[in-house]
Order: sequence, then structure tokens, then C-alpha cells
Amino acid sequence: MTAPTIPADLAQWCSAQAVRMQDELFDFLRIPSVSARTEHVSDCAAAAQFVADALTRIGLTTTIEPTPGHPIVVGEWRGAGPDAPTLLVYGHYDVQPAEPLELWTSPAFEPTVRDGRIYARGSVDDKGQLYLHIKALEAHLAVRGTLPVNVIVLAEGEEEVGSAHLEQFLEREKTRLACDAVVISDSTMFAPGIPSILSSLRGMAYLEITVRGAAGDLHSGMYGGAVVNPAMALARILASMHDADGRIAIPGFYDTVQPFPDAVRAQMRALPFNDAQLMHEVGVTALGGEPGYTTLERLWTRPTCEVNGLLSGYTGEGAKTVLPAVSMAKVSFRLVPDQHPDAIAALVRAHVEQVTPPGVTVHVENLHGGRPWRADLTGPIIEAGKRALEAAFGRAPVITGEGGSIPVVGDFERILGAPVLLMGFGLPGENAHAPDEWISVENYHGGIRAAATLLDEYRAAVG
Amino acid sequence: MTAPTIPADLAQWCSAQAVRMQDELFDFLRIPSVSARTEHVSDCAAAAQFVADALTRIGLTTTIEPTPGHPIVVGEWRGAGPDAPTLLVYGHYDVQPAEPLELWTSPAFEPTVRDGRIYARGSVDDKGQLYLHIKALEAHLAVRGTLPVNVIVLAEGEEEVGSAHLEQFLEREKTRLACDAVVISDSTMFAPGIPSILSSLRGMAYLEITVRGAAGDLHSGMYGGAVVNPAMALARILASMHDADGRIAIPGFYDTVQPFPDAVRAQMRALPFNDAQLMHEVGVTALGGEPGYTTLERLWTRPTCEVNGLLSGYTGEGAKTVLPAVSMAKVSFRLVPDQHPDAIAALVRAHVEQVTPPGVTVHVENLHGGRPWRADLTGPIIEAGKRALEAAFGRAPVITGEGGSIPVVGDFERILGAPVLLMGFGLPGENAHAPDEWISVENYHGGIRAAATLLDEYRAAVG
Repeated sequence: MTAPTIPADLAQWCSAQAVRMQDELFDFLRIPSVSARTEHVSDCAAAAQFVADALTRIGLTTTIEPTPGHPIVVGEWRGAGPDAPTLLVYGHYDVQPAEPLELWTSPAFEPTVRDGRIYARGSVDDKGQLYLHIKALEAHLAVRGTLPVNVIVLAEGEEEVGSAHLEQFLEREKTRLACDAVVISDSTMFAPGIPSILSSLRGMAYLEITVRGAAGDLHSGMYGGAVVNPAMALARILASMHDADGRIAIPGFYDTVQPFPDAVRAQMRALPFNDAQLMHEVGVTALGGEPGYTTLERLWTRPTCEVNGLLSGYTGEGAKTVLPAVSMAKVSFRLVPDQHPDAIAALVRAHVEQVTPPGVTVHVENLHGGRPWRADLTGPIIEAGKRALEAAFGRAPVITGEGGSIPVVGDFERILGAPVLLMGFGLPGENAHAPDEWISVENYHGGIRAAATLLDEYRAAVG
Repeated sequence: MTAPTIPADLAQWCSAQAVRMQDELFDFLRIPSVSARTEHVSDCAAAAQFVADALTRIGLTTTIEPTPGHPIVVGEWRGAGPDAPTLLVYGHYDVQPAEPLELWTSPAFEPTVRDGRIYARGSVDDKGQLYLHIKALEAHLAVRGTLPVNVIVLAEGEEEVGSAHLEQFLEREKTRLACDAVVISDSTMFAPGIPSILSSLRGMAYLEITVRGAAGDLHSGMYGGAVVNPAMALARILASMHDADGRIAIPGFYDTVQPFPDAVRAQMRALPFNDAQLMHEVGVTALGGEPGYTTLERLWTRPTCEVNGLLSGYTGEGAKTVLPAVSMAKVSFRLVPDQHPDAIAALVRAHVEQVTPPGVTVHVENLHGGRPWRADLTGPIIEAGKRALEAAFGRAPVITGEGGSIPVVGDFERILGAPVLLMGFGLPGENAHAPDEWISVENYHGGIRAAATLLDEYRAAVG
């Protein structure tokens, strides 16, 4: 087989249309489609409409499917005929909340280019990485009037809140959504210029723990020492979740963890990774974590327990001597095969109830969960992905893991019976879920070229 | 000595003026003089002016003394002559923040009477208890045109933030403020109808602990497991402050604690106190605290460590998978003799630095401190207080302790060399420092009568 290249007709069109394709993305990024906040329901609807319009405009048959939450957009192009394979492109149009707003250099929903990066909430997670596929489809349809394979585009609006209605939608529509492979771009490259195929994702169990003491806030002098403090009780509950060495101390937590294959661990250890660089990137002077594992193994192959938010009592300026009535922690667990989110949530709940002292009550709410995933790294879509990435970025991709969660990946494989290619264009330090989120301008356009090339390579690989 | 009674002339005047005296208090309570918040600086100035006007109007010579913080109001009446004793009345016109506002039944700064209680921020702590002394002075001056002793009224505006400038003011003005006794009403009665003299107060060391990790918030999937989580680190720091039994585990913390005299402990144990009633009052099903002590002993005679506030990461609706960059806890320690707030703060700081894990940094800020205090329960002002309370409430007062802090009490004794009478008119469940703060209407007017009688009784006791 010859070294892969980007088809010249597509490459030329992409160059000519680059500015417009970036301007369109900016319009998409301006919609504050925060799925977690009820006040953004209409913005999520507007983002769904934006995607639907973009698909219809380039020639796909498009519907907006209501769900009990935010709608799902489906675009279809069946012109390659029943003998050609069908590729499903998945992405999400919803974004994380933008708070704390004051830490953004430029406004979260006013995309701004600085130093070769497009800064905006959703730029990399996942609007930019969804839209680059739509533009890749446009390239084919504009230049050639056709696509080499049948294509389904599925864009949901609840990925950031656990994709509550996607699984059920896939089940209901599995005939219409039947496909031979799925491609998802919602991940990062290992490093700039090093294209990557993701081989594993962590799952997630996300809980909110609320500890309640007295019926109302009390004066800490008049009641302190006799009425149990729910904020102190919460601290003790949270501290009990790790042992002194950094292992998770919730009974049964590791019971279902399957070690990663030695070959995968060996390959991960061979990647050019440097703890000092990570420390510099995030601005810390030491790393931590579970003993006995490298940093990449901790991030990609081991489960975690993290506090995502804490709130209790008085948090304003100065000193208020209050004994709070209530305390709250958002706590999430990243999971690895074969941990199941519901089973982990049950273990956590049992542990929390066990360690909560008398005098306060605890409520553990399951906010969302997603299963962990590992890829089977063979087959035409993986081969096509490797060649498309090499064509677009000039070097063969590396195989990586990732610590983040795309809970739906396992659902696609299980329900549609199709292998999933995870081909991401984010980069380390991209601030997904944090202020100043960005996608590299180069990777947005490189992603369009890779996604366009993927269609030809996939058709060729299937034969 | 005969059983004490309220002088008939004063009693009659107090009844006739009751409505007006309550209306005036309402005007005082409407001023949102929150000393902790910079946006309320002008409200604090307005409250100082209100007090000054109230003193001037009844015949005292009044000045408003600027400080680097909120001003101090001083009113003087020297008409009893150099041979008569001088009584200093202390109170504060500043109040705690009113948040959370949504938990108030009626607005915090719109005083409202319900079920015989005046609800408003500052009603009991301390505007109501300061103003009742001013009205007691007015009773004497209006009815008799004179006072039986010389009187100084000193009202500060920084009690709720640690009285940062009072000590220095007392030092500077100690000649002008020279007095034979001090009376302070900023505490509670043991129960409705049981007047009380406070014999001890706990001190306070109030710290803010800030733990910083990465330079910005991170995606908890991409970095979780390798980058140390400052919210989890904070939970471990806070949990390390108590041992499993509820004793404070900070090395050296108890070293300077002097046990209360057996006689005082015995008297406290004889008070009609009922754990079940406290549990009902605050809405809990169990109490907690240091082993080996009764609830009253825990509240009055033992030091504490309480979390007053917690904040980190994402605290809004739904699930945000963020690894926070920073976490904050407000932590306060109630102190007993001979613990010194600066020494305790230093012990806490050393302990916190010791237990903070690598990968995060910790900053401990000393927000304020106050010394604990115990009374010498003898002498004319104590005798006068007992008789005045019996006169106004129909039974002899009990001697109590209190868990709260009035840090300035020790300063008055030390700098002015005068004994302090703590004669409070609050009640259990009054919600000082919490939503729906109230003072009993009966105790406000009973306090006026007690304070008015105190002047006669004190003159008589000095002889």
C-alpha cells in the first residue's frame, strides 16, 4: 500500500474554503448551549437547529428528534447505495457551564483567535470537533457531488450531563441508525503534530453528597461543640474515601478492575511523556496519585475519586461565625473496565452511610454515570483512521488512552454492533471544562482534511 | 436588704413610652450595618450616626470617633459628680451578614413582630440589647432629670469582625473612659423568664484556609488521578483536625486549657438543661462533641474546632467534571482560658502545613481572634446586676457560661481595670448569626427596666 495522502481535489477545496469554515464554527460557538442549566434550554434548541441547518444545507436529509431532555439531530446521506458501507459520525452540540466567568481572558461565548488558537466554550469539546466532520462531508459533496460511503450524522445535546436519552434513542432507532462503523472526534492528540487514536476511555459515576445537620444555620459559639457540624462531617466523609497512600478506600471499589494488557501498558510507557512537562502545563510542583503506576497509567488505566465541588456555610468576605445547616460535595469517580457506574455508586453510597456520624443525615444522589471502554484495535475503520490521520498530519498516529469519559462509546458498540474509531483533534492544555477552552486552528483544519480523507480510506479499506 | 423592685417612677414611664421605644429600635434595625462587607461601609456610618443622635437627644455629650475601620460612638454624662461611680455601657451597632437571604421569613432589615418576637438582623445581636440601655438612661433623665451615677456609653461597629480597633481605642482613651464597672448586654438568658449573669465566654481564633493546586480548573477526566485535587486535600486537612472520638487532634491544642473550677461545673450541672430540648430546638436527632463532658460543659467550658464555610469548584446545578484549582474553608476555634488566639492560630497553621500533601500549596490567613474570659463573681456591679435582674424579671438570676465570644470583655477588664457585668436578654433559639434572628418583645422591655434599675442599685451597692 502506498503512503496515504489527502485527495488533491479535497485538499484544494478545503484551503479555498478555510476562512468561511472557521467563520461558521464561530457562529456555532456563540450559542451558549449549556446542557446542565435549565435557563439554557432554548440555547440548546438553537444549537440543535444550527446543526440541522448545516447538515441540510450541504445535502443531508435531516431531522431534529425531541427527547425528554435536549433534542438529537440526525442527518442522513444514502447515495452510496446499499452495497456501500455506512459510517456514523457522532458528536455533541452541548457544552459545559462556563463559570467561573471572570477567569476567561475573552468571553466564553465570543470566539477569539489568539496565538493560533480558537478560544471559546465548546471550541474543542465538542462543537469544533463535530463541525469539522460536517465540513469534511461538505468538501466531498461540493467537489464531487457525492460521498464514497453512506453517512449518518448524529449530534446530541446531553453529552455533558450524561447522555441520559441517547441510549434509549439508539435502541429505538437502531434500524435507521444501522451502520458499519462509528467515528467520534471528542478527544485529544497525544501532542501537537502527533495524531492519535484512542484505545480506551474511563467511565464515570458522578454523585452529589448532601449532609444536613440542624434545621437552620446556627451561631457557632452558642452551639459549637455539641451540635454536629455538617461541613466537618462532610470533610471526614470525603477524607475517608482515600487511604493514606492515595488508594481509594471504599470497600469493594477495585474488585471489578481488570488490569490493562501488558502490551498496552508497554506501549503507553514507550510514549514520550514527561511528568515535568505536565507539571509545568498545569502549574504544580508535584504530582500525586495511586502508588505503583506511572502518570499515564494513573490517567488512562486506573480509576479515581475526585471532589468536583464543595459548598457549605458562609463563603463571602470576612468572618461569619456560623455553624452551617447543610454541606454539599460533588464527587465523581472515573472508572475502568469492568467497573459499572451503578455498582460503584452503590458501593460509595454504602460507604458514605457507614462513615456518616450520628447527629447529621446524608443523602447521596446519583447525578450520572457512564461505562468505561476499551477498543478492539483491528478492522477497516481503524485502518482507515490510521491512514487518514497520517495523510492529514504527515505521520502515523500513536495509540493512546484517555482519562476522560465518552460514555456513549460503549453504547454505540453494544447497540449498533459497530466498531468505534476515536480520532480526536484536541491537545493537552486545551482547558476543556475550564476557563479559556481552546482548539488549535491548525487542528481544526487538519481535522477537516483527516475526516474528508477518512471517507475515501474507509471505502477503500472495506473494499 | 429588701427584695429588689423597679423604682415606680421609672416603671411608669417605661410603660407609657413602650411603643415609641420599640418604634425607635425598628428604625435602628432597618440600617443594614454589616461590618464584614465593604459595600456596607456607609450603612455602618449611618448606624453610628443613629446611635450618636439617640445619645445626644437624651442629654449625653456625644462624639463619633473615626477608626481605620468603622467608627466608635462615645456618649458621656458626668452630672453625678466626681464622687459618684462611673458605669460604662458597651454595645455594638454592627451586625452579621444576612445571607442566605432566601431563608428569612420576613426581610432581614425590615423588622417584623410575630408571636411576641421582633425579627430582624441585629434585633438581639446587638442593636436591641444596646438600644435598651440607651432607653434606660432616657427613663432616668426624662423622669428625674439626672442619673444616679456617671455614665459612658461606648458603641462600636466592628464587633462582628473581631473589634480590630477597639483595644487600641481603649488604650488611647483610657483616661477619658476610666470607670468603675462595665455592663454589656450581648448574651442570652438561660431560658425564658430566667434572668442570667454570664460568668464565662469562649474566645476565638478564626482562620481562612486556602488550598491551591493547578493554575486553573482542569478537566477531571484528563487530569484526575495524577494532579492533586485541592478540594480533596482540604477535606483531608479538615478531617485531621479531630480524632475519631471528637477530640481536637492539633498537637498542643489543649496544652494551655485550665479546667473550670469544680464549683462552677457543679452549678452548671445543676441547671435545668435537657439534651432532648436542645435537639428539638435545632432540629437534630443526636448531639456530638468531645467525650467526657455534658452538653453545657461542651458549649461553655471546652474549646471547639468548627468549619464555618466551604467553597471549591463547581457548585451549581447538575454535574460538572472539573478538577478545581482552589478550595477554601473558613475554620474557627472557640477558646477557653488560658488559650491565646495567636498561639492557637500558630498551632493550627503548623498542623495544616504539616498535613498538606505535596502537589498543592496551602495558605492560612488569620481573620480574627479574641481571648476567652472568666468573671470574678463578686463586687458591687455583680450585686447590683443580680438585684436589677430580680427586680425586672421577678426571680434571682442564675449564673451561666456561654459558648459565644465577646472578645472585648477581657480588654475592658485589662485596660480599664474595671469588672464587667454580662447581663444578656437574648434567648435560646434566637438565631443570632442565622436567618430569622429575633429578640423577645418582653425581654426588650424587661431589659430596659433592668438596665434602668441597675443604675439605682449600682449607686446603692457602691454606697
